[in-house]
Amino acid sequence: MSSSTFPQINEEECRRFRASAELAGRKWNAAILLAGARGARRFSEYQALVEGISDRLLSARMKELEAEGLVERTVKPTTPVTISYTLTEPGHQLISLLHPLVNWSRARQAIQSDEPLSPT
Amino acid sequence: MSSSTFPQINEEECRRFRASAELAGRKWNAAILLAGARGARRFSEYQALVEGISDRLLSARMKELEAEGLVERTVKPTTPVTISYTLTEPGHQLISLLHPLVNWSRARQAIQSDEPLSPT
Repeated sequence: MSSSTFPQINEEECRRFRASAELAGRKWNAAILLAGARGARRFSEYQALVEGISDRLLSARMKELEAEGLVERTVKPTTPVTISYTLTEPGHQLISLLHPLVNWSRARQAIQSDEPLSPT
Repeated sequence: MSSSTFPQINEEECRRFRASAELAGRKWNAAILLAGARGARRFSEYQALVEGISDRLLSARMKELEAEGLVERTVKPTTPVTISYTLTEPGHQLISLLHPLVNWSRARQAIQSDEPLSPT
């Protein structure tokens, strides 16, 4: 079994590829990273851009993305303190890598709309 | 809030982007699509390439990917019947779009290895 598109990928790379895709695709993560790429900084700005997420979940996901090195949390010593969340360089790279999904999903939507039935 | 990378994305596109990322990143899906791109056709070939997945889960995910139009199931009327699973054109496109994640995860791994501690 081989393929021209993925000839040189080894098992270690498969595992990392899979882990990365699952990190990027974990529920809410893509939307949070996209919000950061679109300019969100404050927690409330993320809430506004990530439609439907609860405070609790957004907070949990932010911690995870911070632990993964994709988001950086900065605390400014104002009164009260100003907390902001920015994408790190790997975070920016990841959301840029995923950007072609926008066109892919648009094209797919168009195909599905043409079909007589689509249960999904 | 705006960004040079994602200036023209609207809310509808955000939703579709998020849904696509979550479909691609749903546990096992990327690995199954990758197996198809690497030449797997028979169920047993997918099992061999998707390390750690159970028969039951692989079967369930295949049905979902078929329903999403990313995998096509073909039955040849041999005795016994020969069932094969191939990526559709959107399936091929999706795994190709995700391919840059291989290099991204390699670079990220390298950075994390340089760091003194990494709990993840």
